[in-house]
Amino acid sequence: MLIVAERINASRKTIRAALEAMDAAAIRREAVDQDAAGADYIDVNGGTFPGREPELLAWLVDTVQAVTDKPLCLDSPDPAALAAALPKVKTRPPMINSINLERERFDRVLALALEHRAKLIALCQGEGTPATTVDGKVALAAELVERLTRAGVALDDIYVDPLVFPLGTDSQSAQVTIDAIGEIMRRYPGVHTICGLTNVSHGLPARKLVNRTFLVAAMGRGMDAAIVDPTDAQLVSAMHAAKAVFGRDEYCMGLIEAFQAGRVAA
Amino acid sequence: MLIVAERINASRKTIRAALEAMDAAAIRREAVDQDAAGADYIDVNGGTFPGREPELLAWLVDTVQAVTDKPLCLDSPDPAALAAALPKVKTRPPMINSINLERERFDRVLALALEHRAKLIALCQGEGTPATTVDGKVALAAELVERLTRAGVALDDIYVDPLVFPLGTDSQSAQVTIDAIGEIMRRYPGVHTICGLTNVSHGLPARKLVNRTFLVAAMGRGMDAAIVDPTDAQLVSAMHAAKAVFGRDEYCMGLIEAFQAGRVAA
Repeated sequence: MLIVAERINASRKTIRAALEAMDAAAIRREAVDQDAAGADYIDVNGGTFPGREPELLAWLVDTVQAVTDKPLCLDSPDPAALAAALPKVKTRPPMINSINLERERFDRVLALALEHRAKLIALCQGEGTPATTVDGKVALAAELVERLTRAGVALDDIYVDPLVFPLGTDSQSAQVTIDAIGEIMRRYPGVHTICGLTNVSHGLPARKLVNRTFLVAAMGRGMDAAIVDPTDAQLVSAMHAAKAVFGRDEYCMGLIEAFQAGRVAA
Repeated sequence: MLIVAERINASRKTIRAALEAMDAAAIRREAVDQDAAGADYIDVNGGTFPGREPELLAWLVDTVQAVTDKPLCLDSPDPAALAAALPKVKTRPPMINSINLERERFDRVLALALEHRAKLIALCQGEGTPATTVDGKVALAAELVERLTRAGVALDDIYVDPLVFPLGTDSQSAQVTIDAIGEIMRRYPGVHTICGLTNVSHGLPARKLVNRTFLVAAMGRGMDAAIVDPTDAQLVSAMHAAKAVFGRDEYCMGLIEAFQAGRVAA
């Protein structure tokens, strides 16, 4: 299970403030915490400060790399910001969050990914309205996988995100996403699937509970990566338990070691 | 999701003591608590006091019925104990926990189930060693379902328990059980599947976490009943969240109402 650590994101108030103030200490603290909590990649998102995203994303890369050797996931829809930040990345390969099927974004992000041999989070989203059915999501995933591999991206470097929408407005949105994950993993052995979790619980109570329950459910259909907060003890605990339950943890040694290390909240 | 409440079981020390002392107040408290927590059926297990099980099971039925109208699940492998307790059950239909394919037990429990039109928990267990593969479990389930329905038991009255074994000794045991559940539900539309959860985590740390993660995973493949402790707030919370995630909770109203009633531990 690959953990992309999500906390350094300008949509969070504290991070936005740290970006505005260029407060490197605040960013470093988040990087160190997430590294220690078991992040595999550390996502860096510099937000949408008009005109300043390239500068801020590059600054985030430098700032985070000052305290961790973990690889980074560069989080921007803007090819210019990615182009500014990618050359600064030390631990290779970097990951790009994200590409989708919008024509211009696809071409420009793909070129950057090939140039930097980056791993890619590929969102099931085209020019039109988002897909809300299993078939729709799988069709977008297929188009992404086929176009990316044809262009030379290895299957192992593709993390398909089928995009989950809020359960509160569509009771089937999580199940549809889970089914799409199962079908994508079946159809393209070697590809990865990934999701952010927070959308699913938008507008609901007990959001973290819903998020981690969705995570367990998606892991049950083969999802092998997630964009999460690795410092959320209950979430990480659910992930360890899910690995054991789904037979991905021989003799449950991962669970037992995590428990002994104090990382499992019973 | 049908909840069979498991707390009145002689394998628990406090219940064993209450049975030894014929302490009706202690049993009633457990019944009231589980009723209030949302039990659909209240399991009563009088243990294996040599020669006294019929008397004790009948006493449990009377004692629990004094404080709740919820239907009971009579929990004994002994047809004599079931025969003593079944006529005392007021809220119909009762449930019997359990029948399996051992020849004598099958015939005698089946006769009682037909006589009392009882619902049946049917364990995937024959005369031999337990099945540890998907095919093995499904074959036992098929034999149970086909023999029971041929004898006149309605599919809707059968709760197949594929039996989960400890993950600590077989890392695939939960996944095998989950796959069996999926196949049983696919093959016999209208039948139910059920599991006790505690076996899965035997010998592991963070047992309740593992148990509820297994519950979520099994619900993901269609399991629609469980033998659980309904007073375990985290377990019940996971169950509500799983219903929402798996599209079994329209507009998430069940989750929202449970949260508002203070039954969801975020």
